[in-house]
Order: sequence, then C-alpha cells, then structure tokens
Amino acid sequence: MDFTAADTYLRNARDRHLEHLMAFLRIPSVSALPAHQRDIADAAAWLADRLRDSGAPDVRLLPTAGNPVVYGHWHVGDGRPTVLIYGHYDVQPVDPVAEWESPPFEPAIRDGCVFARGATDDKGALYIALAGLDAVRELAGTPAVNLKFLFEGEEEIGSPHLQSFIHEQRERLRADLTVSADGSMWDAETPSISIGNRGLAAMQIDVRGARTDLHSGSYGGAVPNPIHALAALLAGMHDPHGRVSVRGFYDAVRTPTSSERQQIAQVPFDEEALRVQLGVRALPGEPEYTPLERTWIRPTLEVNGVWGGFQGDGIKTVLPAEAHAKITCRLVPDQDPDQVIGAIRQHVHHHTPAGVETSLTPFEGKARPYLMPPDHPALAAAARALRDVYGRDPIWVRTGGTLPVADLVKSELGTWLVFFAFGELDNRAHAPNEFLRLQSFDRGARAYVRLFEELGKLDARTLPVT
Amino acid sequence: MDFTAADTYLRNARDRHLEHLMAFLRIPSVSALPAHQRDIADAAAWLADRLRDSGAPDVRLLPTAGNPVVYGHWHVGDGRPTVLIYGHYDVQPVDPVAEWESPPFEPAIRDGCVFARGATDDKGALYIALAGLDAVRELAGTPAVNLKFLFEGEEEIGSPHLQSFIHEQRERLRADLTVSADGSMWDAETPSISIGNRGLAAMQIDVRGARTDLHSGSYGGAVPNPIHALAALLAGMHDPHGRVSVRGFYDAVRTPTSSERQQIAQVPFDEEALRVQLGVRALPGEPEYTPLERTWIRPTLEVNGVWGGFQGDGIKTVLPAEAHAKITCRLVPDQDPDQVIGAIRQHVHHHTPAGVETSLTPFEGKARPYLMPPDHPALAAAARALRDVYGRDPIWVRTGGTLPVADLVKSELGTWLVFFAFGELDNRAHAPNEFLRLQSFDRGARAYVRLFEELGKLDARTLPVT
Repeated sequence: MDFTAADTYLRNARDRHLEHLMAFLRIPSVSALPAHQRDIADAAAWLADRLRDSGAPDVRLLPTAGNPVVYGHWHVGDGRPTVLIYGHYDVQPVDPVAEWESPPFEPAIRDGCVFARGATDDKGALYIALAGLDAVRELAGTPAVNLKFLFEGEEEIGSPHLQSFIHEQRERLRADLTVSADGSMWDAETPSISIGNRGLAAMQIDVRGARTDLHSGSYGGAVPNPIHALAALLAGMHDPHGRVSVRGFYDAVRTPTSSERQQIAQVPFDEEALRVQLGVRALPGEPEYTPLERTWIRPTLEVNGVWGGFQGDGIKTVLPAEAHAKITCRLVPDQDPDQVIGAIRQHVHHHTPAGVETSLTPFEGKARPYLMPPDHPALAAAARALRDVYGRDPIWVRTGGTLPVADLVKSELGTWLVFFAFGELDNRAHAPNEFLRLQSFDRGARAYVRLFEELGKLDARTLPVT
Repeated sequence: MDFTAADTYLRNARDRHLEHLMAFLRIPSVSALPAHQRDIADAAAWLADRLRDSGAPDVRLLPTAGNPVVYGHWHVGDGRPTVLIYGHYDVQPVDPVAEWESPPFEPAIRDGCVFARGATDDKGALYIALAGLDAVRELAGTPAVNLKFLFEGEEEIGSPHLQSFIHEQRERLRADLTVSADGSMWDAETPSISIGNRGLAAMQIDVRGARTDLHSGSYGGAVPNPIHALAALLAGMHDPHGRVSVRGFYDAVRTPTSSERQQIAQVPFDEEALRVQLGVRALPGEPEYTPLERTWIRPTLEVNGVWGGFQGDGIKTVLPAEAHAKITCRLVPDQDPDQVIGAIRQHVHHHTPAGVETSLTPFEGKARPYLMPPDHPALAAAARALRDVYGRDPIWVRTGGTLPVADLVKSELGTWLVFFAFGELDNRAHAPNEFLRLQSFDRGARAYVRLFEELGKLDARTLPVT
C-alpha cells in the first residue's frame, strides 16, 4: 500500500471528512439524559451510514437492553487476522453550558481545532478510524485485515449493557485483536500507547447510631456519634504517608519490575507544573513511588463523598443519627474487585466503634485492572504506525482511570485490546469547550491507514490470546 | 400568707387561667419564620396585658434590634429582694406538621394534658408564674419580693439580641436574683432543680485540596483528598474511649467533687431504658464517668455535620476539592469558649496533612458554662417551695444543653439564676405534639406562690453576687 498516496488522498478529502464529522457532532447524543433518546437513535443511524460509506459491506444496528450497538463487518480473507474496532457514539452532558465559548452542538473551528461536545470523546476519535478506512478503500480497495466494528451508545453512562451484549454476541464478535478508538495521546507532539488501565471497585459505607437525630446538649457525651465513628473508620484506611492500611488491600498487587519503572520514568512529566495547575500545596502520597507511578501502577482507596448531620448555614446542635461515605478503589494487576471489597468490609467490621452499626454496600461497575503483555506484536505494529506519522517513537503510558471495555473483550472474547486513539489528554473531554486538534485528526487518519496495513502483516495464529 | 387559701383560689381560678393560656397558645408566635412577625407582636401585646392583669403596675414593651421584650416591674418595698423573672413568648416552628394529632395552634386537652406548640416551652411554663402571681395579688395584695419581668421573643432563634438588651438596660433590670420560668422538671413525680448547664463553642472546619474536583482515575494517588484529610483531623479529636484528645481541651475542666458525683448518682436514671429508647447498641463514652455525668459535668466535642464530594445515588469517581465539618463543644466549668476554640484551631493547624489547606471559623453563639454555688439560699428557698407542693425533696440535676441566659444575667447583671420551671423533660418541646400536664400546671402555680414568699424571707444584702 502506498502511504504517500493515502496521505495525499486524505489531505484532499479533509474538508469532506471534516464536514462529515461536524454533522456527527451536531447530533446531541447525550446518553445520560432521556430527553436525548431520539438523538441517540439519530447518531446510531448516521454512524451506520458512514460505516457503509467507508466500505464495510455488512453494517447493522444491533439492539441491546439500552441503546443500540452499531455493528459492522468487512471480511477480506480467511487467512487474515480479524480486528474488532471499538468506539462509542454517545457523549457526555454539556453542563455547565454557560462556560462554552461556542454552543456545544454547533461545532466551530478556531485556532486549528474543532470545538464541540464529542469532538474528541469519542465521535472525533472514532471518525478518525473511519477516515483512515475511507483512504484504504479508495487506494487499496479492501483493508489488509478482516474488520469488525462495535460502536456502542452507552459508554458515558458506564456501558451498563456492554458486557451482556458482548457475551451474547461473542460468536459474531470473534476476533484476534481489539483496537480501541477511544483513548488519548499523551500530548500533541508525543505519540503514546497506553498498555494498561486501573480497575474499579465501588462501595458505600453507612453508619447508624440512634434511631433519630438527637439534641447534642441533652445527649452529647452519652450517645455515640456516627460521624465520629465514620471519621475513625475512614482515617484508619490510610497511614500518614498515604498508603492504604486496610489489611489485605495490597495482597495481590504486583511489584513493578525495574523495566516498568524505567518506562514510566521516561515519560515527560512535570510534577511542579501539575502541582501549580491543580492549585495544591504538594502532591503527597506513597513515598516509594513517583506521582505517575501512584496514578498508574499503584492502587488507590479514594473517598469520593461523605455526608451526615447538618450542612446548612450557621450551627445546629444536632447529634446525627447517620453518616455515610462513598468509596472507589482503583485497582492494579492482579487485584480483584471482590477481594478488595471483602478486605474493606473486614476493615469496617473489625474497626466499627462501640455503639454504632455499620454496613458496606458494593455498587455495580466493578472492573478488573488491565495490562497488556508488553511483547504483544500488535503493540509493535501500532508503534510503527505512530512513528511513521509523528516522526518519533511513541512512549508507553498507562491510564489511571478505568476503561472496562479492555477487560471485557479480554474475558469475553479472549482478545487483547490496543488503544489507538487521537486527541490528547488536554482536550477537555467531559468539560466545557471540548476540542480536537485538526493536526491530530490528520495524523490519526494517516496512522490508521498504516495500522490496518501493519496488522495485516501479523499472523493471526501467533497472536497472543488471553 | 395562707398557702391553703392560695391553693383553693388557684383551684377555683383554674378554668379561667387555662382559657388564658389557651388564648396565648393560639397565637402562632414562631420567631424563626418572618411570616409570623405579626404574631410575635400580638403575643407580646397579649402577654403585656396579662402581666398587667396579674398586678404588675409598670408593664411595657421594650424594643430590641429584633423582637420586643415584655418588661414589667412591681416594686413593693426597698428592703425586699428584687427578683427578675425570665421567660420567652416565642415558640419553635411546628414542622413536621403532619405528625401533630391536633393542630399545633389549636390547643386541645386530652388525657389531662394541653397539647399545643408552646404548651410547655415556654408559654405554658411562663404562664404558670403569672398564675402564681395572680393568686398572690388576690390573697396578699402584693408579693413579698420586688419583681421584675423580662420576657423575650427570640429565645428559639438563639436570643441574638438579648445580651445587648440586658447590657443596655442593666440599670432597669438590676436585681438580686433571677428566676427562670424556662426549664423543666426531671419527671412528673420528681421535682428537680437544675443548678448548671453546659456552655457552647461552635465552629466550622474547611479543608481544601485542588482548585476543582478531579477525576479520581486520572489523579487519584497523586493528589491529596480533602475528605481523607478531614477524616484524619476529626478522628484525631477523640481517643478510642471517647475522650477528647485535643491538647488543652480539658485544661480548665474542674474535677468533680465526690459530693457532686453523689448528687448525680442519686438521680433516678435508667441507662438501659435510655439505650432501648434511642435504639442504640450501647452508650459508650469516657469510661470513668456515667452517662449522666458525661452529659452534665463533662465537656464534649461533637461533630454536628460533615460533607464533601458526591452524595447522590450510585457512584461518581470524583476526587473532591473540598470537605467540611461543623463542630460544637459543650463546655463545663471553668472552660472558656475562646480557649477551647483556640485549642481546636491548634489541633487542626498541627495535624493538617500535607497538600491540603485547612481553616477554622468560629460561629456566633458562644456561651460559657453555668454552675450555681450549691449553698445559694435561693436554691434552698426553691427546694422548700417544691417540697411543699410535691411532698418530696427535689433532686439536683444539671442541664446538658446550653441556656445562655444564665451566664448572661450572671455576667451582665451580677445575679445568679435559679431555674423554676414546670413541664417535664418528656413534654416534646420542639417536637410534634408538645404538651403540658395540667397537674404540673397546678403544681407549678402553687409552687410559685410559695417561691415568692420564700424569696421574700431572704436578706438581699446577703444574697451571693457573681
């Protein structure tokens, strides 16, 4: 395949592709808001049409218990690897809408960027893959790999039906590799490949004292205060250095290898710049690890919310009946969400102060941590594609957050997942004035042309399975 | 004075007095709600009229920066002690109004009790003093003591203007003793005299981390969590046994004498019944002290409210920017609110974890603890009056709550204050279905007749000043 010709084609087709993307961005497919149900359907239909235009002969909407999946299949040869492309066509809500410089669903081009909700996450990043495919179709007729497409419409609400969908459709979705068009690059000039993300375990702790709120004068001193109990329970979950002190929490955590730590040390990261940007005095945490290590390869136990008693203005001399906390843990290999929840449950059970009752309720949304084998040939293929476009080797990074789809395809389809997504960490995904650099749009489409070609060189029989 | 004749008079006058009280109770003088401003004025006017009817020759409404004070003066002789009677004509709001069995401002008599908002706190208890005075006027013409009256209209909102009023009117209010018609008896068959109440110091602690809420996946592990910091700060304020572990907190606390502890041990108190009533597993606290001691003669540091981060349904993987707590301390002799606030400020300052910022903001509403000298002759006089009516000696109790007026008259007027109030702890003050036992109404009026007489026997020159 002639990459120079593909690049020229993409340069010439850019205005058309950009118009397509802007049409996609104009559909306010906010999955979190029921009022946008019609827009979800419109976005799915639009995307199916575009996927057909890009050459995929078999495109259909597959129902789920929620929003439909846009599925596509382009079979080119039995000897070729089959690659499943993942992305999502739903977007985040736009609040606070007053902070947008241009309306979130009226895409605007300024300063070499397109501004709109979904410009990067994930309509823009997803469309980049289709633009690359369009060039492949134009220049080579067919891609070098068999392609399947799974574009869901519920990612921004936590993909509640994705697992059952993939499980039920596992024959149809069977592939040798998954490529995610959802993700991001380290920065505009630094191509990166994320090889892992943290898992998630979520729970709520409820502490109950007396049957009702009480007068703190009449009863204070005699009756246990659930806020005191909760504070003691929560404070006991970390030591003064930021290590989690819940017994068993770290049991399954892999000790990072020196090569892993060297990889992370090579990532260009300015701790002081981050500190200033966030407006904090310091970035404290486990002293044995750097801030990047602490967000990438170390697990956390984070209290996301706490409440109890009086929160109004002034004072109310109440001895509250209840206090509550929400906790999420970010997990690293080989932690298991259920084991971690069990350890915290034991902690709460063993440390509940006298006089109060406690309960721990796990939430849905458990996810195992994900880490690719570093020698997976698809990583090298992706690196070659990126190097050819960016003129430099990609760095290997991790994602501190949780991308459940990675572990889902790993466990349900037996494939590893490679993140290959354009748009950068600074693109304001989920925030006002989300944007995508046109330069990244161009590079991304060119990189996808190369990725399809590179993956076509792999022998499906030797690709690692999970 | 012929007490038997007074008792007979009161028995015969009971229907009339009860009608008066019910008229008073019909005025919805809720000080917390601006919509009831007119009712406040009506209640003050009504009370001034009733005070005139009871014989006081000089009755007037005195303005404050808020609701007026109903003031009265009945001077009977220069050689007699002057006693200032304190009470309040405002009432609590009635929410949740659906829980009232009869409308809160339509007094109803059931089971030997009058049910209405204010039936006990404080319209009923205040009217009892006026009923007693009415009997004195009828049978003796004049009381045995000079009387002054200070009935305020802002007690239920924390008496925001009482201190400045008393300070400005201190010449007019000059007295040898104050008697509070606001308070309560231990139970219907156990007359009691409260000789002290706890003081109050109130504050808010604010903890701030990053400038905005952050994604707990991207930043968790690198960025300090203000909830963790707050939990550690709060947990560090108590030891596992419930003792306050803030350095200096107990510095000024008097060690209770063995006679104080014996007095408290004599109070009929059923710890197990309280535990069951409150629905708690245990009543833990400082092991060296009984529950009554812990609510009466030991100080507390109570977290009244806590909040930060996400409180909605399900999970939100946020690393919050802020966390907050409200704290009130109940103080005992000789603690000072400012010293206690200073100690907690030092605690917060010294124990603030790395990376977050903390601040402590004291609230208005500071009150010093109050404790009468046990040999004050007015206590013995009150005890004689109660014994004569109840047929048994009163017990000496304390009040775990804060009644700022006691320390106010002590510091501004130099008088001690004796609580002489009828209605019991179970009368549902501040709650739905507040009531007053008619038996307590009768006993209270008879007891006030005796109290005025007993106080008249005291020599003003030998009454302790503060």
